[in-house]
Amino acid sequence: MSTPWQQRYAQRMQGVGSSVIRELLKLTEQPDVISFAGGLPAPELFPIEAFRAACDRVLTQYGRRALQYSTTEGFGPLREYIVHKMAQYGIKAAPENVLITSGSQQALDLLGKLLINPGDKILTERPTYLGALQAWRAYQAEFVSVPIDDDGLQTDLMEEALCVGPKFMYILPNFQNPGGVTLSMTRRQALVELADRYGIPIVEDDPYGELRFEGEHLPPLVVQDANRLNGNSSSNGHAQNGSGYFHGNVIYLSTFSKTMAPGLRLGWMVAPAEVIQHCVMAKQGMDLHTSTFVQMVAYEVLKDGFLKQHVRKIRDVYQARRDVMLAALGNYFPPGISWTRPQGGLFLWVKLPESLDSVAILEKAVENKVAFVPGTAFYPDGGGQNTMRLNFSNAQPEQIKTGIRRLGEVLAKEMSVSPKPFDVMEQPEHSLMAI
Amino acid sequence: MSTPWQQRYAQRMQGVGSSVIRELLKLTEQPDVISFAGGLPAPELFPIEAFRAACDRVLTQYGRRALQYSTTEGFGPLREYIVHKMAQYGIKAAPENVLITSGSQQALDLLGKLLINPGDKILTERPTYLGALQAWRAYQAEFVSVPIDDDGLQTDLMEEALCVGPKFMYILPNFQNPGGVTLSMTRRQALVELADRYGIPIVEDDPYGELRFEGEHLPPLVVQDANRLNGNSSSNGHAQNGSGYFHGNVIYLSTFSKTMAPGLRLGWMVAPAEVIQHCVMAKQGMDLHTSTFVQMVAYEVLKDGFLKQHVRKIRDVYQARRDVMLAALGNYFPPGISWTRPQGGLFLWVKLPESLDSVAILEKAVENKVAFVPGTAFYPDGGGQNTMRLNFSNAQPEQIKTGIRRLGEVLAKEMSVSPKPFDVMEQPEHSLMAI
Repeated sequence: MSTPWQQRYAQRMQGVGSSVIRELLKLTEQPDVISFAGGLPAPELFPIEAFRAACDRVLTQYGRRALQYSTTEGFGPLREYIVHKMAQYGIKAAPENVLITSGSQQALDLLGKLLINPGDKILTERPTYLGALQAWRAYQAEFVSVPIDDDGLQTDLMEEALCVGPKFMYILPNFQNPGGVTLSMTRRQALVELADRYGIPIVEDDPYGELRFEGEHLPPLVVQDANRLNGNSSSNGHAQNGSGYFHGNVIYLSTFSKTMAPGLRLGWMVAPAEVIQHCVMAKQGMDLHTSTFVQMVAYEVLKDGFLKQHVRKIRDVYQARRDVMLAALGNYFPPGISWTRPQGGLFLWVKLPESLDSVAILEKAVENKVAFVPGTAFYPDGGGQNTMRLNFSNAQPEQIKTGIRRLGEVLAKEMSVSPKPFDVMEQPEHSLMAI
Repeated sequence: MSTPWQQRYAQRMQGVGSSVIRELLKLTEQPDVISFAGGLPAPELFPIEAFRAACDRVLTQYGRRALQYSTTEGFGPLREYIVHKMAQYGIKAAPENVLITSGSQQALDLLGKLLINPGDKILTERPTYLGALQAWRAYQAEFVSVPIDDDGLQTDLMEEALCVGPKFMYILPNFQNPGGVTLSMTRRQALVELADRYGIPIVEDDPYGELRFEGEHLPPLVVQDANRLNGNSSSNGHAQNGSGYFHGNVIYLSTFSKTMAPGLRLGWMVAPAEVIQHCVMAKQGMDLHTSTFVQMVAYEVLKDGFLKQHVRKIRDVYQARRDVMLAALGNYFPPGISWTRPQGGLFLWVKLPESLDSVAILEKAVENKVAFVPGTAFYPDGGGQNTMRLNFSNAQPEQIKTGIRRLGEVLAKEMSVSPKPFDVMEQPEHSLMAI
C-alpha cells in the first residue's frame, strides 16, 4: 500500500489543518442532538416553489444555454442584477466590477491564490470566520489579529498589527461570524482611513448584511472608502469610458447562501475591474465557471424583486429565534457567563469564566444532546478557550429553549452550581424534540 | 486610481498567463463564424426534458435538503453511483475513494494545491489539455513534455523527462484533447511500469472515454496499475475492513460534462482514500462543497440507467460529425497537410507544413468566418506553431463542411495553391448557416 503519494502530499496539507467545520457538521447529523454548531439557514424558509417554477422556465425556455459551458465572469443578467442590488447599498459598480463565484468561499480561495505568498501576513478580526482561515492557510498565510468588542473590530488597537505589513485585512462588518457584533459607524470611518494611510487593502465579507433585525443599516466599508476617495461626493466616481466606475481600496464579497439557499453555491465579488480580470483568469483554472444552470435559475427567481419580500420573512423568523435564545440564555445559563446581543445574522458569541475550556464542555454537551462550536476554532493565532459560538437560525424556538437548557445544565455542573429551575414560561405540552 | 492592489497581484498572475480559452470562446459567440475552436458538446443533445423532470422531483421530494449545505465529499447516492459506474470499467473503488468535484477542472486545481510547490516539474503529453496547464501554472509549476503520435504518448521517449524528477505525470489516454489520439494497449502497460519504476504517480484524465465510436474499449491506466499490483488477479485487492479497496499509483478523473451537460459543473476524482481525505480538506477551503442541488438533480437523472442509452445517442451524432469533417478535410484541404483520425471524443488535430504559423492563419480564418484553436496553446514548453485543434462535436454537419471549406480556402491561399473545387456531394439547397 505504499505509494509515492504519501510522501508528497503530507507536507503541503499541514497548512490546511484539521477539518473542524466538517467534523462539527457531522455532529449536527445525529437526529437527537440539538445543534447550535453549524451556520445553517432555516431550511423551512427555502423558496422551494419559486425554485421549482424557475427551473421549469429556465429549462423550457433556455435549456440548451443553461446546460452549456458559459463565460467565467458569470451569467450577464445575474451580474447586472447584482449591480442594481449593490446600488441599493450605495455601492457604485458596473458589470465588469462583478464576478460570480461558487459561493463566497471561492472568492476567499481566489484572493488567496492571487495575493498570498508563503509567510504573508493577513490581518483579521479576533475571532474571525473559520472558512477564511482554512482557505488562506492552504497558501501558507500567517495571521495577525486584532480583538473585537461589542462595536466590532477595535480599530484603536490596530497599530501594532498594521506595522507588521499585512497583505490585506479581512473584515466582516455586519453581525460578524462568529461574534455576532457589528462594526460601529465611527470605527468604519477609522478603518478605511487606516487602510488608506498604511496602504493595506480591505477584503469586506458581508454574507449577513441584509439580515438586520433592528437598528439602522450602516454603509459598507466599500462605500465609506469611495466617499473618502471622492471627498464625500459620490457623483465624482462616475467614469465616462464604460470601463466601470468602481475603484478604491476595498474588495466586497457577498453570497446568496443566507438569503436564498446555500445549496446553490452562489456568491459574488465586487472589485476594481482590473482585480476582477485577474480573478477571472484564476477562476478559469479553478472551475472554468460557476454552474450556468444554477446562475440562470437563481436569476429567474430573483429578477422580479423576489428577494425583498423573502428576506423580510427570514429576518422575522431569525429575529424571533434570536429573542428565544437570548431569553433562554438569561433563564438557563449560570451567572458569570456573558454573551453578545446581535442585531442581525445567525450567530451569537458566549464568554465563559476564564477557567473553563469549551472544547471539554462540548464533549459533555454532546453527551447531553446539544452542540456548539468551541471558540478556539475561530482564533487565528491561539486563545478563546473559554468562548463558544451559538447559531440561532437553524433550530425551532422550542428546540432552542431545550438546547440552551441542556447546555446550561452542563455549564452549571462545570461551574459547580445548581442548574436554574425550569422557565415558568415553558410549555411542556409541546414536544420539545419536534423538528 | 492608484490602489495597493496593483503592485500586489501583478507578480502572482504572471504565472497564470493570458486567457486563451476565454478569448477563443468569445470568437465562437459571433453568430456568423463557424467555430471549431471551443470544446463544446452539441447542445441539441442535452437531456433537457430529463433535467426538467428531475428538478421537479428533487424539489418536490427533497427540496429542503437539495437547497441546504451538504458535505464536502459529495452527495452519498451520487458517489455510490460513480462506484458502480467505475466498476463497469474494471475500477474497484468504494465511496470513500470518490470525491465529487465542481467539474474535473476543480480536480486539477485541487491536485495543484495539494502537490505542487513553485518550480515543481509536471510531466505531460505534448500537446496536452490547456486547462491543466492553466490550473498548474497558477501554482508556479514547470512542465516537461513527451510527444504523442497516433498511438498516444511515446512511452519509449520518456526516459529523459522522467529523469528530471516530475512530481506526477498527467495523461489523457482516450481521444486526447487536443490530439484526438488514444494510448495503445502496449503503451498503457509500459506507462504504468515506468510510473512504478520511477515512483512517479499518474493523474489519468478521462473526460471522453465513454465516447468511443469504433474499436475496442481499452482499460484505464488505473486498472492496468491495479492489475500490476495484484499480479494480474483483480480479486486480491478486495479489503475486508470496509475502508475501500482502491489503492495504487494512479488518480483517475472524469466528468459529466461530455456525457450529460457541462453547464452543471460536475466531475469526480477516484483515488486512494487517503488522497481523497486530503482533497476533501482542501476542497472545503475552496468552495465548501459542490452544489447540493446540482448533485441531487444529476443523480435523479442518472439513477435508473439513463446514461447508457443517452451516451449511445451522443456517440452516433459525434461519429457522423467526425466522418463529415474527415471527408471535408480530404475534399477541401490542400495537399501537404495531415490530421489525426480519432476513434472517439470531440477533437482532431491538424499538422500544417512546417513553414506555416497557425496563429497568423487564425486571424485570416476569422476574416473568412471560421475559427479553430492554434496548436501552440497546447504546448506546455513551446512549439506547435504549425498545428491546430478542430472540434467536431458542436457544429452541424453542413456547417462542418462549410467551415472546413472556408478554412481550406485560407490554407490554400497561404500555401499558394488554388482551392479545391466544391465537393460534388454538397447540397446547396440547405441553409449552411442554420444553427
